[in-house]
Amino acid sequence: MKLIIEKDYQSMSRVAANLLLGKMYNQGRVNLAITAGATPKGMYDILIPEVKGRDYLSNVHFYNFDEIPIRGSKLGVTMQHLTDLFFEPAAVPKENIHELNETNWQEQDQRLAEAGGLDLILMGIGADGHFCGNLPGTTHFGDGTSRVDVDEKMRNLLTGEVGGDKTKVPDFYVTMGPRSVMQARQLVLFANGAKKAAIIKQAFFGPVTETVPSSVMQLHPNLTVILDEEAAAEILPLLD
Amino acid sequence: MKLIIEKDYQSMSRVAANLLLGKMYNQGRVNLAITAGATPKGMYDILIPEVKGRDYLSNVHFYNFDEIPIRGSKLGVTMQHLTDLFFEPAAVPKENIHELNETNWQEQDQRLAEAGGLDLILMGIGADGHFCGNLPGTTHFGDGTSRVDVDEKMRNLLTGEVGGDKTKVPDFYVTMGPRSVMQARQLVLFANGAKKAAIIKQAFFGPVTETVPSSVMQLHPNLTVILDEEAAAEILPLLD
Amino acid sequence: MKLIIEKDYQSMSRVAANLLLGKMYNQGRVNLAITAGATPKGMYDILIPEVKGRDYLSNVHFYNFDEIPIRGSKLGVTMQHLTDLFFEPAAVPKENIHELNETNWQEQDQRLAEAGGLDLILMGIGADGHFCGNLPGTTHFGDGTSRVDVDEKMRNLLTGEVGGDKTKVPDFYVTMGPRSVMQARQLVLFANGAKKAAIIKQAFFGPVTETVPSSVMQLHPNLTVILDEEAAAEILPLLD
Amino acid sequence: MKLIIEKDYQSMSRVAANLLLGKMYNQGRVNLAITAGATPKGMYDILIPEVKGRDYLSNVHFYNFDEIPIRGSKLGVTMQHLTDLFFEPAAVPKENIHELNETNWQEQDQRLAEAGGLDLILMGIGADGHFCGNLPGTTHFGDGTSRVDVDEKMRNLLTGEVGGDKTKVPDFYVTMGPRSVMQARQLVLFANGAKKAAIIKQAFFGPVTETVPSSVMQLHPNLTVILDEEAAAEILPLLD
Repeated sequence: MKLIIEKDYQSMSRVAANLLLGKMYNQGRVNLAITAGATPKGMYDILIPEVKGRDYLSNVHFYNFDEIPIRGSKLGVTMQHLTDLFFEPAAVPKENIHELNETNWQEQDQRLAEAGGLDLILMGIGADGHFCGNLPGTTHFGDGTSRVDVDEKMRNLLTGEVGGDKTKVPDFYVTMGPRSVMQARQLVLFANGAKKAAIIKQAFFGPVTETVPSSVMQLHPNLTVILDEEAAAEILPLLD
Repeated sequence: MKLIIEKDYQSMSRVAANLLLGKMYNQGRVNLAITAGATPKGMYDILIPEVKGRDYLSNVHFYNFDEIPIRGSKLGVTMQHLTDLFFEPAAVPKENIHELNETNWQEQDQRLAEAGGLDLILMGIGADGHFCGNLPGTTHFGDGTSRVDVDEKMRNLLTGEVGGDKTKVPDFYVTMGPRSVMQARQLVLFANGAKKAAIIKQAFFGPVTETVPSSVMQLHPNLTVILDEEAAAEILPLLD
Repeated sequence: MKLIIEKDYQSMSRVAANLLLGKMYNQGRVNLAITAGATPKGMYDILIPEVKGRDYLSNVHFYNFDEIPIRGSKLGVTMQHLTDLFFEPAAVPKENIHELNETNWQEQDQRLAEAGGLDLILMGIGADGHFCGNLPGTTHFGDGTSRVDVDEKMRNLLTGEVGGDKTKVPDFYVTMGPRSVMQARQLVLFANGAKKAAIIKQAFFGPVTETVPSSVMQLHPNLTVILDEEAAAEILPLLD
Repeated sequence: MKLIIEKDYQSMSRVAANLLLGKMYNQGRVNLAITAGATPKGMYDILIPEVKGRDYLSNVHFYNFDEIPIRGSKLGVTMQHLTDLFFEPAAVPKENIHELNETNWQEQDQRLAEAGGLDLILMGIGADGHFCGNLPGTTHFGDGTSRVDVDEKMRNLLTGEVGGDKTKVPDFYVTMGPRSVMQARQLVLFANGAKKAAIIKQAFFGPVTETVPSSVMQLHPNLTVILDEEAAAEILPLLD
């Protein structure tokens, strides 16, 4: 594990952007799976002016790693966020965007393998230890890309995600499972803020257990964890 | 997972030897962790005449990944086997052999990291699903190189390993843990014979669980499994 | 440069075979450009029984790097040799063989780039220092895949290659140029016999010059040279 | 060749900085050879605040690739510039800086090989096509790290570099030669301004020839060229 601790959200975002750009400049096809949510906002703001209009990045392909379908919508929650946050403002060409959704999730792992595999997957972490759509009690470590049923508790959570209308909440969502994620050549996890400090300690300095799904990343031979000082607060005493 | 099924023990051994030699011919330092036991005998017999006396392999360094100390002996069980099976007949220079033992296991992970990490680790599998010294009920997925206490049941097993004299059985052995093993850039697992057919199915096509320790390898982005047809018997129906 | 010197033709052939097999066992698509001619005969004899009937090598793709068209024949000299020496006896599937010929040479470099580039190119060396079809006085270091006109002197040489009938000798041949070859991720050059001893010294321990085309390989960051003792005779004094 | 054209000096500098940072964030030892001179000023200004005080970059090692000794000074021209431009303002620890100078140039290639080789070498280009200290008429393509005699014409040029005092100009300088540079795993060349437009076309779209030393880089399998629009002016018509 390569651990990078930066002072604040802005510099954490800058490091994540640099790391992604470093990959993007490579020769040949580059496959990146990227994250929606609140954490990456600062990073995308940095990336957009460095990606927009760059023909020399036509070798870079983007994947989403989970999706919550919205009843009555063409795009799901994740792709809608990624489009708003990054794909549209950065003018990423449609042919470079590879959508995972409720209709094609069963082909995701095969599709990635045939495209040469993921070079890098960038993820956030939930306060419950989830990564991608791998919440405690949903997938197992050995699962590939999976369909997860939405239960009553999750239905309430997702109502916000789909815009507040409970009737738009789907019966299931799809996500790359732990085994699929671990096949990527590099994992990057980033997190900021005091509310993540406890789970960071558990996930990366505690036992590897399905009750903290992101703890599985400790097992990857090329894992980078990027934190701001608040998110790193509980692990700092362990680093001496 | 790259799955290689060969007809018999001899051709399985040939593939494992080729794969190791392919790595050894690389430029720059090459770090390999290799296995003792019954499975590799055929492979070492192939390797010895292709390694012995080759100055151009002075860049290749060898590591053992577990050790059972023997009371009153300088070498433990694993290093004694590796010496007899390979290091001595292949005339591997002492400075290219990096011993893990009961006195230095706490530095093993750091030592490997400083040497650039393992390029490849070659392992067998036990009928109980163990790899290296990671038996069910001993280490956890998150463990680095560890010391494992020998209980009464294991003491009986190990009496054979130390030559039949129960007084030579140690109170503990040491092993690279699942997390340490997973840091290698490539994992190679090989197995032969009908007695391994059931565990191969469990370990590589069943759930990832600490009760089958080697199932963790499913999560590695560069895993090669080499089997003879007998060891592959139970998974063949799953491959179509 | 990684320099491997083996006792004789047989052991040189074995090392070349091992090195190729080590690459073939990799995960994902593997692109290899391989050589016809006299040098590789022993290597293909070793490879054939280890490649034939192996479904697990369906990820391996083969390319020829030069071609001498034969008037009135569908296959040129190189592809005919490769078919006889390796593709047919090893039963390599047609879809894994990517022919370079007089009709498609202008697309070769682009085609390789789109397929992810060559992982390895295995070549022999001529007593005049040529590699692939890069003879002294034909291509320049900066040339990509090229068409080379056949002059009178070369016409006499090629008459033997096309079976003795001068009317079948073409007006030109095609070859990957030095720049194309150097794009591969690994170069392997092998040679045996006393008649190669002088050119080996010139090519790999002399100046980098277009009058000895293969000297350009000295500039590659991942070059492996495999020799028998006879071919290495003139460089042995330089190695202490 | 990966070709990156940016609008102006500032954005060219940003891309170069991102690319270097992307490498620096890697796990394990990272070896970078970097350039002094006018071109990198903007890049170092971007790098300094992202490198200074970062303990997590303790794995990154820096090398200079040429040196002009100054009579009576401990540091030569290159190291003095690198110290002023980057090492001192970025507070790079002394143990991470590996000086090439007039006393140790004969060990440079061996020293780099033992340290695992260069991951990346970042270079500028002279209007005469030189890179590092490889000026037309000095080194040859096959040269490793070399000593170059200073003739009368060069003496005049160097007088400025050593601060205007002709008596401080040395009799020779040292430089990694073309063969040494080409051993790096990645080459990065950057250039800006209209005065570089002609040589960029010659070096990267003209013949590979010792009269334009940097043309040799065309032969590297992993070359990145970063230009501003002015430096790219003469090649733009060739890119359609």
